[in-house]
Amino acid sequence: MKFDFRTAVNSDLPAPQKLWSAFPKYNFVGGHNDADSLPIDEITAACNSVLLREGKTLATYSLESGPQGYLPLREFLVSKLDKYASMQCDADNILLTSGSLQAIDLINAALLKPGDTVIIEESNYGGVLSRLSQLDVNMIAVPVDENGMRTDALEQTLQQLKSQGIKPGYIYTIPTVHNPTGTIMSLARREHLIELAVKYDVAIFEDECYADLVWSGTRPPALYSMDSTARVIHIGSFSKTIAPALRVGYLVADWSLMGYLLSLKTDAGSGALEQMLLAEYCTEKFDYHVTKLNKNLQVKLNALTNAIDREFGTTAEYHSPPGGIFLWVKLPDTINTSKLSEVCAAEGVAINPGNEWSLQSDSTQYLRLCFANPSAETIDEGITKLAAICHREFGIPLHGHNQPRDA
Amino acid sequence: MKFDFRTAVNSDLPAPQKLWSAFPKYNFVGGHNDADSLPIDEITAACNSVLLREGKTLATYSLESGPQGYLPLREFLVSKLDKYASMQCDADNILLTSGSLQAIDLINAALLKPGDTVIIEESNYGGVLSRLSQLDVNMIAVPVDENGMRTDALEQTLQQLKSQGIKPGYIYTIPTVHNPTGTIMSLARREHLIELAVKYDVAIFEDECYADLVWSGTRPPALYSMDSTARVIHIGSFSKTIAPALRVGYLVADWSLMGYLLSLKTDAGSGALEQMLLAEYCTEKFDYHVTKLNKNLQVKLNALTNAIDREFGTTAEYHSPPGGIFLWVKLPDTINTSKLSEVCAAEGVAINPGNEWSLQSDSTQYLRLCFANPSAETIDEGITKLAAICHREFGIPLHGHNQPRDA
Repeated sequence: MKFDFRTAVNSDLPAPQKLWSAFPKYNFVGGHNDADSLPIDEITAACNSVLLREGKTLATYSLESGPQGYLPLREFLVSKLDKYASMQCDADNILLTSGSLQAIDLINAALLKPGDTVIIEESNYGGVLSRLSQLDVNMIAVPVDENGMRTDALEQTLQQLKSQGIKPGYIYTIPTVHNPTGTIMSLARREHLIELAVKYDVAIFEDECYADLVWSGTRPPALYSMDSTARVIHIGSFSKTIAPALRVGYLVADWSLMGYLLSLKTDAGSGALEQMLLAEYCTEKFDYHVTKLNKNLQVKLNALTNAIDREFGTTAEYHSPPGGIFLWVKLPDTINTSKLSEVCAAEGVAINPGNEWSLQSDSTQYLRLCFANPSAETIDEGITKLAAICHREFGIPLHGHNQPRDA
Repeated sequence: MKFDFRTAVNSDLPAPQKLWSAFPKYNFVGGHNDADSLPIDEITAACNSVLLREGKTLATYSLESGPQGYLPLREFLVSKLDKYASMQCDADNILLTSGSLQAIDLINAALLKPGDTVIIEESNYGGVLSRLSQLDVNMIAVPVDENGMRTDALEQTLQQLKSQGIKPGYIYTIPTVHNPTGTIMSLARREHLIELAVKYDVAIFEDECYADLVWSGTRPPALYSMDSTARVIHIGSFSKTIAPALRVGYLVADWSLMGYLLSLKTDAGSGALEQMLLAEYCTEKFDYHVTKLNKNLQVKLNALTNAIDREFGTTAEYHSPPGGIFLWVKLPDTINTSKLSEVCAAEGVAINPGNEWSLQSDSTQYLRLCFANPSAETIDEGITKLAAICHREFGIPLHGHNQPRDA
């Protein structure tokens, strides 16, 4: 008789996944990137060059660089973070991780236990919401507006928690190209946030995974660079700037935390070839590549907003973001995007429903649309189809594709 | 004032690591491989070829293969596991992981909770012992002899646990080139183990990370291939056959478990370039490469045993293994290898003390020596130095390097 793993597994596991078949035709979910922007010839040349020069070191765990990851990539990051985010750190403050998700897991493992409290932005990265929920951590949400996290509300929250004798594990923020709203936190808010964190003696967890993708206005300095008390843990990634399948992220922190994170990182190192390739490529080409990528992303965002304006008209509200790869769209309150996403999925249109990306009470009116991966043409077709499904299911938008365009 | 992460971190964390500086001169620890056996020109060519053909797919998480990993590599494994281990499986039964350590973590997360019991081999992989200990799982040890796990003792253990109403989470075994003893479990023992697992309805966790490195005798079929009840979870790795820094392992299991493991694998995929490279290289060259590697490893093992025989004489006992990358050495009971390893570390000689690799009561008489990475010359020098330190600290071996060789 066959062994029954369904009864053998722990009873509190998440539901099992189904066998993967293929990407949906109209894929507006996930942080997939623009394949046409990926400079394969240059990536291949960089790979060649670093493998022929140093490939033998792959025979040792972590190359010759130790558990914090390939030293030349950490050195590139030292200069890149200085140039782009005004951060002063050295290679010993950087830990290379298997995507920024591993950085998040390590930080959570070091700082949180079930029942702890953290402060987060109300609309938020779904992968963080699901992780904190899985860890049985209390999430206290602070609203976000067009200038980023509302630090006046943060102050109230910190005050209230203090009066209850609760010290939060950290304040988690995505200050630059916030996920999902796309906003950039103003300099004044950044200063206020740090002032409050110092006053209430709380650590700040700064996630800047999208921060290199800014094409409108200037990128403010990172919180890490503005704080003189070593309380900011900064994370970033090469997923959004180079390629997500490479799985290379990083974490910048004071050594008083780093030593603990290294003890928790029991994976015998993150993938070294990908680190070698990135160091070789980025040291020469990062600026050039990101400038070009941002131009291409802007074209796709325009394709997306044009299609939404045309298909949804006034029924869709959004702020066109200054960068990034996603658009956060609000629909009328008669629409439930959770239901919408299910129906759409069955018809080849994948969208992120708002309730997986926000703790707002009206989250089911929102949806997140990622625009980096599909072509401009596919984006246009997909939004047309989305509008048609939305009309069919909810009667909105009224002038969608379901009616003659000249009606 | 600087934020104090030492008081902010969870109180039950492992001790923080220190800043890494460099590998010790005489490095007999860790699964590092033979750099001279790494075919860098061919690896580079494979990387070139796959990147130019399919590199654009790096722009999507998990390429076009879904969360179980790059399909061509899973297809290579289907044929390799059939050829080398008589295993019948298909690509849907295979999950590519970030090293086999991630496979171990996923299996533990699915099947174990604090207070659970598992059955393991008494001498064992240190990384498994530390993980199970960290998970607060009870380890019941079964002795290993020259034919592998003593299944007569396993039967007693299973009977005893049953009488106590305890059902173990799994039986963990490294049947082929056991870590650290290097033994290969006989066919009769394999049959007996499966018979017992069926009788007591327990899952088997088969770790074959070293199984491709057999140069003496034949490799028996994997337990996975001998079981008709889908209770065997099989794991393996490319760390020992190709290169450890690539961080690609794999897990083979029935789909009734796979779906849960995928839900627990929240890392957005393992490094894809390394999977692409391995598929491209191994499909053509795996057999050729492993044959050559095994010859080189055998030369290094000979260098190690020659040096030990010369320096330690009769004070060192060992079975020369039929494959693998380590030697398990027993010293007289006046020697404490835990102490020895500390003194040695300070003098540039790294060894694994037995108490980190065994639950035997006499574990502090043992040490594990990895021989794949250092050159034959370095092995010889390192053992000479080890013997000298051992003599200085414990008075044994009597005819070590500390005395004129002709004394």
